[in-house]
Amino acid sequence: MRIPRMTPRDTTFFDLFTASAEHLVTGSKLLGELLGADLVGRKAIAKQMNEVEHLADEATHTIMRRMNSTFVTPFDRDDIYELASALDDCMDFMEEASDLIVLYKLDELPRRVADQVQILQRCAEITAEAMPRLRSMSDLQDYWVEINRLENQADKQHRKLLAQMFDEITDPILLMKLKEVVEILEEAADAFEKVANTVETIAVKES
Amino acid sequence: MRIPRMTPRDTTFFDLFTASAEHLVTGSKLLGELLGADLVGRKAIAKQMNEVEHLADEATHTIMRRMNSTFVTPFDRDDIYELASALDDCMDFMEEASDLIVLYKLDELPRRVADQVQILQRCAEITAEAMPRLRSMSDLQDYWVEINRLENQADKQHRKLLAQMFDEITDPILLMKLKEVVEILEEAADAFEKVANTVETIAVKES
Amino acid sequence: MRIPRMTPRDTTFFDLFTASAEHLVTGSKLLGELLGADLVGRKAIAKQMNEVEHLADEATHTIMRRMNSTFVTPFDRDDIYELASALDDCMDFMEEASDLIVLYKLDELPRRVADQVQILQRCAEITAEAMPRLRSMSDLQDYWVEINRLENQADKQHRKLLAQMFDEITDPILLMKLKEVVEILEEAADAFEKVANTVETIAVKES
Repeated sequence: MRIPRMTPRDTTFFDLFTASAEHLVTGSKLLGELLGADLVGRKAIAKQMNEVEHLADEATHTIMRRMNSTFVTPFDRDDIYELASALDDCMDFMEEASDLIVLYKLDELPRRVADQVQILQRCAEITAEAMPRLRSMSDLQDYWVEINRLENQADKQHRKLLAQMFDEITDPILLMKLKEVVEILEEAADAFEKVANTVETIAVKES
Repeated sequence: MRIPRMTPRDTTFFDLFTASAEHLVTGSKLLGELLGADLVGRKAIAKQMNEVEHLADEATHTIMRRMNSTFVTPFDRDDIYELASALDDCMDFMEEASDLIVLYKLDELPRRVADQVQILQRCAEITAEAMPRLRSMSDLQDYWVEINRLENQADKQHRKLLAQMFDEITDPILLMKLKEVVEILEEAADAFEKVANTVETIAVKES
Repeated sequence: MRIPRMTPRDTTFFDLFTASAEHLVTGSKLLGELLGADLVGRKAIAKQMNEVEHLADEATHTIMRRMNSTFVTPFDRDDIYELASALDDCMDFMEEASDLIVLYKLDELPRRVADQVQILQRCAEITAEAMPRLRSMSDLQDYWVEINRLENQADKQHRKLLAQMFDEITDPILLMKLKEVVEILEEAADAFEKVANTVETIAVKES
């Protein structure tokens, strides 16, 4: 005789987190395209970025509403809240960077900025791949170890980039603009690490 | 027959949160006055602001002490801590902005800075109006929806202001000073959003 | 008859937190030495700082692994996580400041920077002294009160230093570099306060 579980966990949370992380993949790709585009192209891409950020925002609210209306959640409400917020932060920082690159009319960006964005793209991809594995809580360690490695790499890149900018750029106003953009990209990398740390916390509690 | 509740919740927490939020109303008004004042008037207002910040600090500590000495709290200790801390942060950022405007001898401020402060005043007012409603947990959704709307507006204002400043101001040192002030005002708006998110979390748990 | 405790708490957590805080003492001393050294000496000290940061990082991971593999922890897992993370942040900010002073080739630093570092050294010392007292949860209040006092002092120093820098330094690029370093030192002071707040939270729960 099979005994039905009395309070089935709401499995759609896993789909919602996956959808949320897939917006990050789209966003990080747009950010890469934006770097390679001319000023006119950038405006169009930044507009697409605003739209993806809007979708990601809706995805976050769907998770929050689902959390509030669901009696039994697959893991602690606090952790659902943390994970959804952390995913949302990744998007916000990427969108802010894209917006500022356009607003500040930053014509040429140092090559290392593209390296920063590439790391974000990799972070987004492996985050999106990891989300469905929250269901079975399997093979998640590789994911958070890799994110931590990428964030360390981003951190080193960031400092080298800052030192290089201060060495090579003599216009203080241009420096100020670029510094803000590269710092926001570094914050995006930190936000991906926060997502991974939250996943680790959840996995540990469930193990 | 009326059955008395065995462990009456300590209702004064609601008064304490309300008092804390009322300091924010006073602080945000002072910030508005400071913008309109001359350099001498600003010094006097910044001093009043320090005093209000001090009172707010004491209000926070009163909440924390009460939390530690009360056996049954009206909601989770973690949430009381979060809410008191978030209210305190709002004040800290407003006081820091006021102090820096004086320290940096910022004669003229862009008009949009006044718009930023107006949003903070509105945030403070509706936060102070919402705090007493924590008692009944009623009509709180309008509050957090409105704060989220205001924070979005503040965010857009902030980016426009940054772009405008970089377009119009050619003195890099003045730019650096102004940029710091407008960023702290943006952090104040974020802190009000944090308060609203915490209230939402509390309301959801209690519902 | 003595009844053995069925599930002895893992006392080594206290040693691990103490070890973690002792890295902060070493780090803050290195930071002080770095300020007094010439450019060649600074490179060597910054390298030592990287090594201490690496050791602190390993200490943090040891705490996290222990937390995950221990059935009964001396206090809430969330608080262990918070405390370990906050201690780690103190180190990260000090190491970042040391790295940037070298990367930015900051020859002369304002005297008040040394005052900032002295406050950090005092914070590190009393934090390391407090950690073993977590075992008995005794005499911890003096510690967090003193850290709060030091952080307030650091905050005032920080603002005075900023105002002085803007008054005296006319090279905007030098200003930008120095501003970043002094802000990171201020963030380190905030991180020590976060450690103290976490200890207060733990002590209150246990009392």
